[in-house]
Amino acid sequence: MTSADHVESAIAERREIVNEAVSEQLPVQKPERLYSASRYLLDAGGKRLRPTILLLAAESLADVEPLSADYRQFPSLPGDEVDVLSAAVSIEVIQSFTLIHDDIMDDDDLRRGVPAVHREYDLETAILAGDTLYSKAFEYMLDTGAPAERSVEALDELATTCTEICEGQALDVDFENRSDVTTEEYLEMVEFKTAVLYAAAASIPAILLGSDDETVEALHGYGLDIGRAFQIQDDLLDLTAPSDELGKQRGSDLVENKRTVITLHARDQGIDVEGLVSDDPSDAEIEAAVQTLEDAGSIDFAREMALDLVTSGKERLDVLPENEARQLLEDIADFLVERSY
Amino acid sequence: MTSADHVESAIAERREIVNEAVSEQLPVQKPERLYSASRYLLDAGGKRLRPTILLLAAESLADVEPLSADYRQFPSLPGDEVDVLSAAVSIEVIQSFTLIHDDIMDDDDLRRGVPAVHREYDLETAILAGDTLYSKAFEYMLDTGAPAERSVEALDELATTCTEICEGQALDVDFENRSDVTTEEYLEMVEFKTAVLYAAAASIPAILLGSDDETVEALHGYGLDIGRAFQIQDDLLDLTAPSDELGKQRGSDLVENKRTVITLHARDQGIDVEGLVSDDPSDAEIEAAVQTLEDAGSIDFAREMALDLVTSGKERLDVLPENEARQLLEDIADFLVERSY
Repeated sequence: MTSADHVESAIAERREIVNEAVSEQLPVQKPERLYSASRYLLDAGGKRLRPTILLLAAESLADVEPLSADYRQFPSLPGDEVDVLSAAVSIEVIQSFTLIHDDIMDDDDLRRGVPAVHREYDLETAILAGDTLYSKAFEYMLDTGAPAERSVEALDELATTCTEICEGQALDVDFENRSDVTTEEYLEMVEFKTAVLYAAAASIPAILLGSDDETVEALHGYGLDIGRAFQIQDDLLDLTAPSDELGKQRGSDLVENKRTVITLHARDQGIDVEGLVSDDPSDAEIEAAVQTLEDAGSIDFAREMALDLVTSGKERLDVLPENEARQLLEDIADFLVERSY
Repeated sequence: MTSADHVESAIAERREIVNEAVSEQLPVQKPERLYSASRYLLDAGGKRLRPTILLLAAESLADVEPLSADYRQFPSLPGDEVDVLSAAVSIEVIQSFTLIHDDIMDDDDLRRGVPAVHREYDLETAILAGDTLYSKAFEYMLDTGAPAERSVEALDELATTCTEICEGQALDVDFENRSDVTTEEYLEMVEFKTAVLYAAAASIPAILLGSDDETVEALHGYGLDIGRAFQIQDDLLDLTAPSDELGKQRGSDLVENKRTVITLHARDQGIDVEGLVSDDPSDAEIEAAVQTLEDAGSIDFAREMALDLVTSGKERLDVLPENEARQLLEDIADFLVERSY
């Protein structure tokens, strides 16, 4: 098995476990329309990358063979038991809440190949489903059975993360109306909007299992690094992957004048980024635009930045014991910038 | 000073303190548009009834002279200090988040005499402002300095309350499409949508200050009782108060075919409630409709139910030491069903 196959099967195995835990902890109960809308996007798919990272970090910290310990009664460092699966569900549910509300804000019709929740149901139900998932995520994080001191710290991390995600989304909206956004500002927005949830996923198991502050911080940093790399890779794929692999029009970021590390770099090289393609560009037009960005060094610039972040993120894992789960966390970092979807 | 004056000044004094704490804990920082939208409704007014109840319950539990102890370093029963003001801000911020999202869902244009947040700003910003207040409320509840065990219990109460508010709102939407809603179902909806936040406000100080379970439960019950009474009084005022005191058209619930304890009672008496008034009724038409409801005993029925709830709520306060703050909590219960606005 190649390293990529190994990573994909580690993700797939944990995805099954997380999906089952979601069905268990978030049943479709009364009021049914509310809960079926809350489950809709969770049931429609998703890689479950963040909960997978959370569970692997727990396994590496506890230094156990992957999948050998029960996630519901997971051995902490001081010797008590913690339900790390409930924490994993919490993180996935936060992710789902942000997708539901983001799709309303961006007026997007599709998500994961199905209609967005506000299209499949309606605006009211979608807002309310997001709000329900929000408080449920806090309930799940309170349900880990960890001693109170560690629960409080995990909840603090969760609450701060949610605030930052909102701030990141607000910055993203704000940037659409500004032409002078710097690469630094853009990366701060990505950190808040996307990377902090990876940081929470990686650091919360350390908090819950009673690791020292240095370990919590290192895992947090790993999450921030690979979260930013993930976003940059997304922006690269938009330009370089075929439309059928992307599930959307190649180059759509250029059509929508979305700011990315790539377009900001090109702008700083004097390229008229907003004039690169028309509103309804042909494949040849996209190809030419990408060539222009290649020639300006913008694509290599972004690729290198993503690789640097991945290298930095992997180095932070030095605080973990050397074991298979840590290796998988390193492989996931590589996978994020090697993936083609 | 009459008892009503006494209550109103107790509320006004604490409103000032809560408003100052909101400015302190929720400053308009970057991203500015997000935080100014988050503050907008909080700055537009509101009685601050729920935080007032929280602060009075704390004062009664600690058996201190009202306003004699610093809310930021409030004496708990085991002798440590708790910032109960931060908990009060948390509850008010949750209230504000629900109003912002409710106004979007109901497509209401006005709130507290000013445009709703999604009108003053836009839909995206209003959704995001509500989401930001949501996580901020959890941050504030984590910031009380209470020992971890009590913080966890308070957060649990807060999270469960938020889930129930969402469920109540979902039931309310659901009921609009049903003609067979029973009074029992309606009261359950009111409990979830409105009363649970009063219950959280009354019981969380007991949790944070280290009271026993019986006291926590009693205060929770007080909040549920007066919260339901508050809603029934709102429904009564819609029919009986002059339009200029209401700040909206008298009888608007009849025009909108809103279900209330009053209209459900009338329906059960065989009255065609939906045919009582036209879409744009004259004052005389409203007057005649109210007379019909009076004659059917529906108004008295609701008034008695509200009074019974207030009596029950006040009785639950027997667990508290006899002191001025407890008296004010009893007076607030009376005030809720005597108020004319």
